[in-house]
Amino acid sequence: MTERSITQFDLPTGFIDLGMGNPDLALLPIDALRQSAEAYFSANDPRPLQYGIEQGNGYFRLALAEFLTEAYGASVEPDLLFVTSGASAALDLLCSLFTRPGEVIFVEEPSYFLALRIFEDHGLRVVSIPMDDEGLIVDALEGALAEHSPKFIYTIPTFQNPSGRTLTQARREKLVALAQQYGFLIIADEVYHLLAYGQPPPPPLAAFVKDVKQVISVNSFSKILAPGLRLGWIQAHPAMISKLVGCGMLDSGGGMNPFVSALALGLIETGGLTENIAGLRAEYSRRLGIMDAALKTHFPEAVYTLPKGGFFFWVRLPGRDMKEMRRNVKKYDVDYRPGALFSSREEMQDFMRLSFCFYSSPEIEVGIERLKKCLPSI
Amino acid sequence: MTERSITQFDLPTGFIDLGMGNPDLALLPIDALRQSAEAYFSANDPRPLQYGIEQGNGYFRLALAEFLTEAYGASVEPDLLFVTSGASAALDLLCSLFTRPGEVIFVEEPSYFLALRIFEDHGLRVVSIPMDDEGLIVDALEGALAEHSPKFIYTIPTFQNPSGRTLTQARREKLVALAQQYGFLIIADEVYHLLAYGQPPPPPLAAFVKDVKQVISVNSFSKILAPGLRLGWIQAHPAMISKLVGCGMLDSGGGMNPFVSALALGLIETGGLTENIAGLRAEYSRRLGIMDAALKTHFPEAVYTLPKGGFFFWVRLPGRDMKEMRRNVKKYDVDYRPGALFSSREEMQDFMRLSFCFYSSPEIEVGIERLKKCLPSI
Repeated sequence: MTERSITQFDLPTGFIDLGMGNPDLALLPIDALRQSAEAYFSANDPRPLQYGIEQGNGYFRLALAEFLTEAYGASVEPDLLFVTSGASAALDLLCSLFTRPGEVIFVEEPSYFLALRIFEDHGLRVVSIPMDDEGLIVDALEGALAEHSPKFIYTIPTFQNPSGRTLTQARREKLVALAQQYGFLIIADEVYHLLAYGQPPPPPLAAFVKDVKQVISVNSFSKILAPGLRLGWIQAHPAMISKLVGCGMLDSGGGMNPFVSALALGLIETGGLTENIAGLRAEYSRRLGIMDAALKTHFPEAVYTLPKGGFFFWVRLPGRDMKEMRRNVKKYDVDYRPGALFSSREEMQDFMRLSFCFYSSPEIEVGIERLKKCLPSI
Repeated sequence: MTERSITQFDLPTGFIDLGMGNPDLALLPIDALRQSAEAYFSANDPRPLQYGIEQGNGYFRLALAEFLTEAYGASVEPDLLFVTSGASAALDLLCSLFTRPGEVIFVEEPSYFLALRIFEDHGLRVVSIPMDDEGLIVDALEGALAEHSPKFIYTIPTFQNPSGRTLTQARREKLVALAQQYGFLIIADEVYHLLAYGQPPPPPLAAFVKDVKQVISVNSFSKILAPGLRLGWIQAHPAMISKLVGCGMLDSGGGMNPFVSALALGLIETGGLTENIAGLRAEYSRRLGIMDAALKTHFPEAVYTLPKGGFFFWVRLPGRDMKEMRRNVKKYDVDYRPGALFSSREEMQDFMRLSFCFYSSPEIEVGIERLKKCLPSI
């Protein structure tokens, strides 16, 4: 039979694409999922195979709330959780429900380039707000509010994709205050929050949702368990949960992922999720150190802040046009993502995004060596 | 622990809601799914847990194409299939990609009321086209084209929800010709096509997609396997498949349901899906006969055409206001769906939709008896 594709990216054997934002196939917890599938089927409960309740299985939301309460160190209520089929589907749903084509939204500069494509599909006008080492420059956002009335700001507050930066607590508070004052939503993509490799980040923006209607936290099992499950959650104020639950798509199809929720439920209850995240943190932390050392060896001129969590190094090679340089790179069996991809204003030309999560430590070392060959010092 | 909801509708014990469009919990094939889960996990392939290829797992599409080729009696190509997370999510995606708020679409009168809610969320202006016993009146549609330029028509061509009617072959051909001539899309919801209880219906509108860009067939495993899987497919022309595959949501999140596709793949390959459908047909066919007999006994004045497939009886009680009558009905521990719910123009007042699939034969008999008590003859 002809070879057919299963995964989103099929790379030639031996090729090292350091730009990949996917988790490592070898780290996907197939054994833990097998166990939770066995537990689900031995309980013989057909209800998760029926149309599911719109907000998501109540027992799953309870287990998830308990897990998050522990992980966030602050109480999370099951009734403020809404089960999704992943962060991308959640962003799409939020755009459908809260925006109309032509409306303005704010994003960070740089930002996750594939979220930008979702906003484009919805005909939204994107205005970007600069960042510095403390994350989004909230004063710049305040300035932009004089000119624009955004429907929402899309932010990745913790271990941002691509920059790795984390918004400080003071700025989080100011951002939320501005959203309340000016009446725009904050869509916080918090999918990297639980992947901290050193000291914990400030509390997630999810911590505000109980009191603040404007904050919507989007999260996912893709980075902490397995992307193929297409399972995620939104944490938001009851007023926002009601809007999600009442939409036509859910009224018709029911909850977004009932069967998979039932499998994940077992995995949370047995501690398998906590264990998986601990394992990922340990392994990713090692790989982060390896990439840092390799960059220091081969690219002493590189400018970057060591990431404290997430998936990415955001590396500046001053004066280089990384989009232009990429034309040559594939013949060295290596790749990265050029900074311009993450810019809404065609800037960031001398940056590249590298992931330290998709490849094993030895592959990371080989990859950086190859990069050096095709990007010799000027 | 407090009782929490898992399914979309929790009915009090003993209550018989003959309006329900869900499959019977007791008929959901949990054993077949257990077997396919065991087969998946014993093969130990982590790829379906990774971000999936946008169009859907190639092996799953191949197996589905072979199954459909057999079921439709005409060749179906895997490359014209696109895997979705159910028909509702598919309709939502098609609205996002192909419409803008304020645009006109056509629907059948009556039509599936929850699809109408999806169109409403997208700000679409709905114009309804009448039906008769041969399905959508295509000449009426042609007339409406003088006044409107619809973006698409949403049709349920076979065993329609709620009317049970099936579009004739001659009308199918004329509808497709009009779509080509006037450049509107046909979104054909074909989720009941494989549930025929007598002679087979005309070929699905999916049979046209190879040659006709305008036809998009939406289908699902919800009625033929289990709704909780949130798994479905679109069959369309390559030009349309490209548009779906290239959208921002999929570029970001990958294929819509990779892990569940891998489980369903095993179920198709072992013949479990074919067997399940055969079982459903046999059981639903019996229930159809029981409901028909009970209606004839208790409602001799009822006007309806015996459905030849699908889930529903569309029953007219001439002169009754079924929305008004419904106020009393719940105290008899029984319910139905009033016809007005399915109308885009506040008509169909003396119709009701009854399902013969959700309840066992004895429950159907009791349900119709109860209905008789609260809807005595005039």
